[in-house]
Amino acid sequence: MSGEVIRAGVLVTGTEVLTGRVTDRNGPWLSERLGELGIEVSHILCVGDRAADLEAGLRFLAGEGADLVVTSGGLGPTADDLTAEVVARFAGRALVLDEGMEEKISRILAGFARRLRFDADALREANRKQAMVPEGAETLDPAGTAPGLVVATEGPTVIVLPGPPRELQAMWPEALETEPVRDVLSRAKPFHGYTLRLVGIPESEIAKTLRGVEAKRDLSALEITTCLRGGELEVDVRHRDGAEGAAAAVRAAIAERHAHHLFSQDGTTIDELVADLLRGRSLGLAESCSGGLLAARLTRRPGASEYVAGSVVAYSNRAKSDLLGVDPALIERHGAVSPEVAEAMADGALARFEADVAVSITGIAGPDGGTKEKPVGYVCFCAKLADGGRLARDPVIPGGRDDIRERSALVGLHMLRVVLSGVEAPL
Amino acid sequence: MSGEVIRAGVLVTGTEVLTGRVTDRNGPWLSERLGELGIEVSHILCVGDRAADLEAGLRFLAGEGADLVVTSGGLGPTADDLTAEVVARFAGRALVLDEGMEEKISRILAGFARRLRFDADALREANRKQAMVPEGAETLDPAGTAPGLVVATEGPTVIVLPGPPRELQAMWPEALETEPVRDVLSRAKPFHGYTLRLVGIPESEIAKTLRGVEAKRDLSALEITTCLRGGELEVDVRHRDGAEGAAAAVRAAIAERHAHHLFSQDGTTIDELVADLLRGRSLGLAESCSGGLLAARLTRRPGASEYVAGSVVAYSNRAKSDLLGVDPALIERHGAVSPEVAEAMADGALARFEADVAVSITGIAGPDGGTKEKPVGYVCFCAKLADGGRLARDPVIPGGRDDIRERSALVGLHMLRVVLSGVEAPL
Repeated sequence: MSGEVIRAGVLVTGTEVLTGRVTDRNGPWLSERLGELGIEVSHILCVGDRAADLEAGLRFLAGEGADLVVTSGGLGPTADDLTAEVVARFAGRALVLDEGMEEKISRILAGFARRLRFDADALREANRKQAMVPEGAETLDPAGTAPGLVVATEGPTVIVLPGPPRELQAMWPEALETEPVRDVLSRAKPFHGYTLRLVGIPESEIAKTLRGVEAKRDLSALEITTCLRGGELEVDVRHRDGAEGAAAAVRAAIAERHAHHLFSQDGTTIDELVADLLRGRSLGLAESCSGGLLAARLTRRPGASEYVAGSVVAYSNRAKSDLLGVDPALIERHGAVSPEVAEAMADGALARFEADVAVSITGIAGPDGGTKEKPVGYVCFCAKLADGGRLARDPVIPGGRDDIRERSALVGLHMLRVVLSGVEAPL
Repeated sequence: MSGEVIRAGVLVTGTEVLTGRVTDRNGPWLSERLGELGIEVSHILCVGDRAADLEAGLRFLAGEGADLVVTSGGLGPTADDLTAEVVARFAGRALVLDEGMEEKISRILAGFARRLRFDADALREANRKQAMVPEGAETLDPAGTAPGLVVATEGPTVIVLPGPPRELQAMWPEALETEPVRDVLSRAKPFHGYTLRLVGIPESEIAKTLRGVEAKRDLSALEITTCLRGGELEVDVRHRDGAEGAAAAVRAAIAERHAHHLFSQDGTTIDELVADLLRGRSLGLAESCSGGLLAARLTRRPGASEYVAGSVVAYSNRAKSDLLGVDPALIERHGAVSPEVAEAMADGALARFEADVAVSITGIAGPDGGTKEKPVGYVCFCAKLADGGRLARDPVIPGGRDDIRERSALVGLHMLRVVLSGVEAPL
């Protein structure tokens, strides 16, 4: 890597995150945003609501050469919310009342109190501490009730943001516009790179391909990470100016050796690919073991109502017959988890939703219900087009109940991709 | 807090986690397990696949007084998998080939290679490095292909586990059984405590109640965290021996002041409560804006097929009529998002699934489709019992599309709780 490398540390606070009761969404989100700005994130550090641990965390990140530290959480009204106070101490500043901010917060709270019919005075009292800021800090207007802070120090510039992801994300652009942060950003050189996505292939195959490229040319200027992500393999290649040739050689080698497994070369996700393929058509789903996960995943995208007609989550056999028209004799003969019933479910979804395309999923998610012939993880899929295309698969999916359910939804998406695009693909 | 406090640090490695592309599941999981053992987790630290950052992370956690450090990830076959090497250096040990382990891994890989029809030699070559371990370390048998390690050092004992959550979780019990880890555990004094869950109440109300208790007695021996968790408020109280009275006083005050909002006093989740209430009955769902999320959440639990008949995810108006029997004229008159249509959907789900209880959800998840009368976030719910009980709500749920969808599924669960248990509750 050439050029000046600007490093950042992310400090996530909150005992609820540290104890594992809440999954942190801010660390990953901030890290992605910083990466896009060409900043190398060195650490994401979660600490609890203890002043000493928080301060030690700030010192550690500063000591590791962070030019920027972004904190999330600990700006609430309760006594365990300590971030502003600790950052003030770290920066060697006094904590002072920002009266303009106090006024802003009190207006926001009055609105809440009216709507929620809680005592406005109690709210205000609990929240006055949210207007206490390190002297000289820049404040960021609250998206909820907590203002953010930008504090220049002798070491890193510290951006202090609230814990609720929606508030943090809403306040991020304003943080980037502050003078101290713009100073740091102006020194960062952007990364280049790309992300490849593959399906149905183990990590070791990519390692082998990379060794083949490396035998012929120097790849040390690239940062290559391969990771399994929910059943897909993601290869991420990053570099700074000057390593374009090496990056292109890696891409070409993977595209050539793994053409059948490579479904995305520009970072597009399977969800985006399928949404694009579905435009102008209507989709009906018939889900059993995936329990609605495929419908939930497809409808997560805004505008999904243009192409998703719906899903019948037919968990009971009776629902398979009553709502999807699967012949009870067929279930009796082959079992509810069988290629035959999967196809009948797809036919039912096509008919009941009057859809152009349908996918069905029926399988054994476990932990019980497996047999020698049909073990836990055995899942039957069928994708059908109203005008005749058909694709069927019945893999045994490894893992526990959650894995099998989620992987089933993913395979359903890839079945849709293949049947809609007419490509040859091993699934 | 009295007694000896055993502290642990969790070190999560992996550029894919650090860059935010993959959400870390190991840090929270390990933290919960350690907490259950009476160990105080001081930090969860994520670092990328860089030896220097990894080593600095180990040193930091050791310097913060960790008696135990648990690492996840970086045990794979590729060159960016560095954990065993870095831990060896941290412990001042040489990295040596464990031949017994090499043999075990090669047997596992031969099996994979046969099943997946990939080249066994390529796999073995890529994976030989997985059998390199710090001299004198205890090894943990692989759940996948990577062995785990337990390394006693002059500072903390280090447990090294692989990154895939399923493998890490499977290997955890064996790690606890090793001599160095048992040594540490034997010194830990367990925490006591409880978790209360409330719904429909802001954090500031709890803060006020706690101040009331604190005015009368010393609560400094308690660690109390309140956090919003997906629309619910969770109050977690932890303490060591001797603070039982203070803990009981907090519980009593919250139970008294917030009886209507408090739905769980023993850590039971809404999912568990509803599953218990559903036993012996059958449930049908009719979902629109939640897009299958409620069905997915309810069927996540093993054995859900005993009480979940299914869900009609009726995203289009036509599906609402064709699959749930909602009169098109009713949709025409009141709109698809209306209390009237919600009730007709619930009736349809009761009838079509021949269910004992049904819940319907129809709303505007956004970002488009809102009007002045029915803004984005307006969601109509109806819960009905086949034998006559009925509960309807139509709140405006704040947040973005994801928030509105997930909160809708949560409100659906609470509607079920209320209608099935017959309690009085504000929702």
